Amino acid sequence: MSLGGWYLQKVSENTFLGMRIRSIVFSGRTKYQHVEIVVFEDYGTGLVLDGLVQSTEADEYLYHESLVHPAMILHNDPKNILIIGGGEGATLREVLKHNTVKHVVMVDIDGELVDLAKKYLGSIHQGSFYDPRAEIVIEDGYKYVMRTSDKSFDVVIMDLTDPYDPHGPARELYTEKFFREIKRILKEDGVLVSQIGNAFYYEDIYNKIIEDSKRVFRYVKEYSVWIPSFGYEVCFMLATDHTNPDKLSDEDLDKIIRKRNVSTRYINGIKIKAMFNLGVRKKLRHS
Amino acid sequence: MSLGGWYLQKVSENTFLGMRIRSIVFSGRTKYQHVEIVVFEDYGTGLVLDGLVQSTEADEYLYHESLVHPAMILHNDPKNILIIGGGEGATLREVLKHNTVKHVVMVDIDGELVDLAKKYLGSIHQGSFYDPRAEIVIEDGYKYVMRTSDKSFDVVIMDLTDPYDPHGPARELYTEKFFREIKRILKEDGVLVSQIGNAFYYEDIYNKIIEDSKRVFRYVKEYSVWIPSFGYEVCFMLATDHTNPDKLSDEDLDKIIRKRNVSTRYINGIKIKAMFNLGVRKKLRHS
Amino acid sequence: MSLGGWYLQKVSENTFLGMRIRSIVFSGRTKYQHVEIVVFEDYGTGLVLDGLVQSTEADEYLYHESLVHPAMILHNDPKNILIIGGGEGATLREVLKHNTVKHVVMVDIDGELVDLAKKYLGSIHQGSFYDPRAEIVIEDGYKYVMRTSDKSFDVVIMDLTDPYDPHGPARELYTEKFFREIKRILKEDGVLVSQIGNAFYYEDIYNKIIEDSKRVFRYVKEYSVWIPSFGYEVCFMLATDHTNPDKLSDEDLDKIIRKRNVSTRYINGIKIKAMFNLGVRKKLRHS
Amino acid sequence: MSLGGWYLQKVSENTFLGMRIRSIVFSGRTKYQHVEIVVFEDYGTGLVLDGLVQSTEADEYLYHESLVHPAMILHNDPKNILIIGGGEGATLREVLKHNTVKHVVMVDIDGELVDLAKKYLGSIHQGSFYDPRAEIVIEDGYKYVMRTSDKSFDVVIMDLTDPYDPHGPARELYTEKFFREIKRILKEDGVLVSQIGNAFYYEDIYNKIIEDSKRVFRYVKEYSVWIPSFGYEVCFMLATDHTNPDKLSDEDLDKIIRKRNVSTRYINGIKIKAMFNLGVRKKLRHS
Repeated sequence: MSLGGWYLQKVSENTFLGMRIRSIVFSGRTKYQHVEIVVFEDYGTGLVLDGLVQSTEADEYLYHESLVHPAMILHNDPKNILIIGGGEGATLREVLKHNTVKHVVMVDIDGELVDLAKKYLGSIHQGSFYDPRAEIVIEDGYKYVMRTSDKSFDVVIMDLTDPYDPHGPARELYTEKFFREIKRILKEDGVLVSQIGNAFYYEDIYNKIIEDSKRVFRYVKEYSVWIPSFGYEVCFMLATDHTNPDKLSDEDLDKIIRKRNVSTRYINGIKIKAMFNLGVRKKLRHS
Repeated sequence: MSLGGWYLQKVSENTFLGMRIRSIVFSGRTKYQHVEIVVFEDYGTGLVLDGLVQSTEADEYLYHESLVHPAMILHNDPKNILIIGGGEGATLREVLKHNTVKHVVMVDIDGELVDLAKKYLGSIHQGSFYDPRAEIVIEDGYKYVMRTSDKSFDVVIMDLTDPYDPHGPARELYTEKFFREIKRILKEDGVLVSQIGNAFYYEDIYNKIIEDSKRVFRYVKEYSVWIPSFGYEVCFMLATDHTNPDKLSDEDLDKIIRKRNVSTRYINGIKIKAMFNLGVRKKLRHS
Repeated sequence: MSLGGWYLQKVSENTFLGMRIRSIVFSGRTKYQHVEIVVFEDYGTGLVLDGLVQSTEADEYLYHESLVHPAMILHNDPKNILIIGGGEGATLREVLKHNTVKHVVMVDIDGELVDLAKKYLGSIHQGSFYDPRAEIVIEDGYKYVMRTSDKSFDVVIMDLTDPYDPHGPARELYTEKFFREIKRILKEDGVLVSQIGNAFYYEDIYNKIIEDSKRVFRYVKEYSVWIPSFGYEVCFMLATDHTNPDKLSDEDLDKIIRKRNVSTRYINGIKIKAMFNLGVRKKLRHS
Repeated sequence: MSLGGWYLQKVSENTFLGMRIRSIVFSGRTKYQHVEIVVFEDYGTGLVLDGLVQSTEADEYLYHESLVHPAMILHNDPKNILIIGGGEGATLREVLKHNTVKHVVMVDIDGELVDLAKKYLGSIHQGSFYDPRAEIVIEDGYKYVMRTSDKSFDVVIMDLTDPYDPHGPARELYTEKFFREIKRILKEDGVLVSQIGNAFYYEDIYNKIIEDSKRVFRYVKEYSVWIPSFGYEVCFMLATDHTNPDKLSDEDLDKIIRKRNVSTRYINGIKIKAMFNLGVRKKLRHS
């Protein structure tokens, strides 16, 4: 194994992932965060925010398809969608695959980041920013939700940085208080989904978020998918008051995918059911 | 994130995992390999062979339960079991949980490693070496299989180091030739299971092993589980000529688990079905 | 280059040194600091405090001989010596080589560290703790100096951790205020020497310490020696009001070394003169 | 200390230096080597060949001034100079400062590297390539010397990659055989100087080179300077049959520097004498 240029990414206080760098396309600071666009030997071009990989060409499909489609499919007729975060445009790309969608609001606090994504991450956003159904709002997601009127959305997707940092910008969006605000702007049959980091390395924070969401929503489903360039299995929380996620069979799910003409690389009915059934992995604690 | 003592573990030529070390219990070379027993901050005590983590207290249950139980359950009445490798005794521990088992032969080439495991890894082997049904054979697994008479075993479990190194000691055990030898020593309804490394970082080697196994066995099932201290999702190959792994429902599987009085931390019928359905994750290759 | 156990040591915010670990002899926290005793492949057994190497078998002779002998030789008849810090006993060992010495007070804040050094670092202290001329005082060096009466010492040696951390325990000992206190307890012809970290990576802090010392002492000499296991050239500040360090020739210096029967591995008159003439290395700043 | 993009540079088999990357200006492979031009936080723009830093803006002056001027000054009237290696043009830059110089041949095997240096490393070569006295020859230095007629040069400067790799391209240029060839093309009063890597981490190779050079030249002087971005003190070997390097006083040396109108940032007569007197640092080996 040869030395040279490596990106060292924090996984936990006591674990990090080293990824060989082929080149650095961009490195700079926006008003909100440090943005790097790096070409990794193992993962292709990737977006890194404040030292943490958000998306890479080789594995972002696993993340974005797993984040978006279960929630979208669980809703009967998702027309109005809110994405909080998701600056690189890939969550938007997946949402727009559902032909039921009329309007997607993507709210990202960092306009400079969105501009960088437009410029450098074409292989990731694939033009989604320019879809006529997409509205890009540059604003703090928290404030956007606060000023939004009731029952505006069918599906809300939180695609934010990890919730670990107690002083981080995303922290207050992973709380019972904010989940109640989300619920307020969701229609009766609305669905919320959020990436919520990792349950093995940050079990306490993970458990707290799940508890908080269960205080607000009737059905909460935990699932996960391993993302190689994250160095861990990313966990998702799917929440709704309307449809029990376990009620739908894999055939039901596939029928909806076909009906909406959604084309995926990874997700299908069987995989959604399997992810729901596998849950998340935690540490075995020895006495 | 503070500096200090770290274990840097190769994941691929272009990725490595850094794990903070609390202490080093043992470090030395046996006739066959470099053995380290390290206490990691995130994973507790772990066994490292030639620089690669094999088992740690925090997550070995995920690996060993996923390796052992699907194959054992798929067999109707597993009495005679062969484990190739598995020096730390945890695969043996899981096999012995099935009350159908009469005799387990565990063949590991490295007697010094087994002695170190007995001495230092009690929390991992949990006394399995001393079960009267267990026979520990210190011998090259390849030679053991070659000199074994036909149809001796119900289940064969390959728990070896990764197949990536073309000159590594385990390489010839991941070939069509060897799978045919395994088949020769399996009974008609016998089942083979093997860990086969990772499909994302080593797709070509992975695909080759799956192809080879499909030339030898009627049913080949690919599944996987994320192991935090490996830095990746470990893949398994389950092969048999007798029972289609997809035929059993999760209730069927759970019934067998209960009947055999197998107590697990992780695996159950639903999780086995889900793992079978999720398969393994590979790179998305951009044009 | 193979992976495995490595100690990652901070050199600056933007540089670190990776050192392969053979074994970890001790790791624990005293009341004052994190103490590790590590066997490094390249450096043998070493003492690490709060993540920074203090001494290793392979190169501590360069550090301790360079710290101690120039100051001791510059004094005409050093009888009473004060060492502030120096918990591993090697500065004491070098001081005691001068047959003029009647009494050495070594003040270290961390009694547990001294006990660990006695137990594990025999190859480094070489029994110096047990010399009848040595008095080990477990106390904050700052307080010890404050409560010491005037003109007690011929030579004061500051062997403390680096001055970089603005909130670190050693910070207030690298100030004009403290240098004045040292001067107060030095005899008229007394000499102060201190390690003061590195001038390349921490030029501002380095320059400040030199300026402060020049406000207090008539002659201030800067010199340095590369310490491999530090990852940098360590700088020293020698200060006195009495003898101009440049006045002595290398022959003068060697005569003193011989007269006092001091046996060294590295230092002699020529090397002291050369170190004085080479000064320290700083960054070239481009416009 | 934050994670992110780092360059990991081998210092020895068991030591490496981590340097934070600000950006990567160029990365590619020439016919002969992997070339990277990297901006380091601590060192500014630097040239890296096959993973080893050759020159950075912050500290290359220490290396190139220490390599060039002692040899140039030791010669009475250096007119014709040969540089072997030195692709980034900084050795050439220093040689050209001596107003005695009529002609400098710089022989570097890698024309692509020289072109990259011209394009990207202006702050380092400072236009030296375009001096009318400079002749750039793209050729294997070994072959160039072999085909050169006797007594062509006053000073020969070897500015090559490190001699550690037994199969490396530079290895055969650090041998008695090659030193004899150098001697053949030097005039009677000629001087050879070469960087020869590090004596602490590679003492055996270092000692062998010194022994070899002593078999060929009457006077061999060892000296060194710490280069922060190398992670070690680089050692030099100065060899001649004519003038004993110790014979000149620092005043003699300074007189020559002034007479030739050489302007330096670091080197002067006192520092040259001091470097000669300090020699190189080696490991203390414990029994």
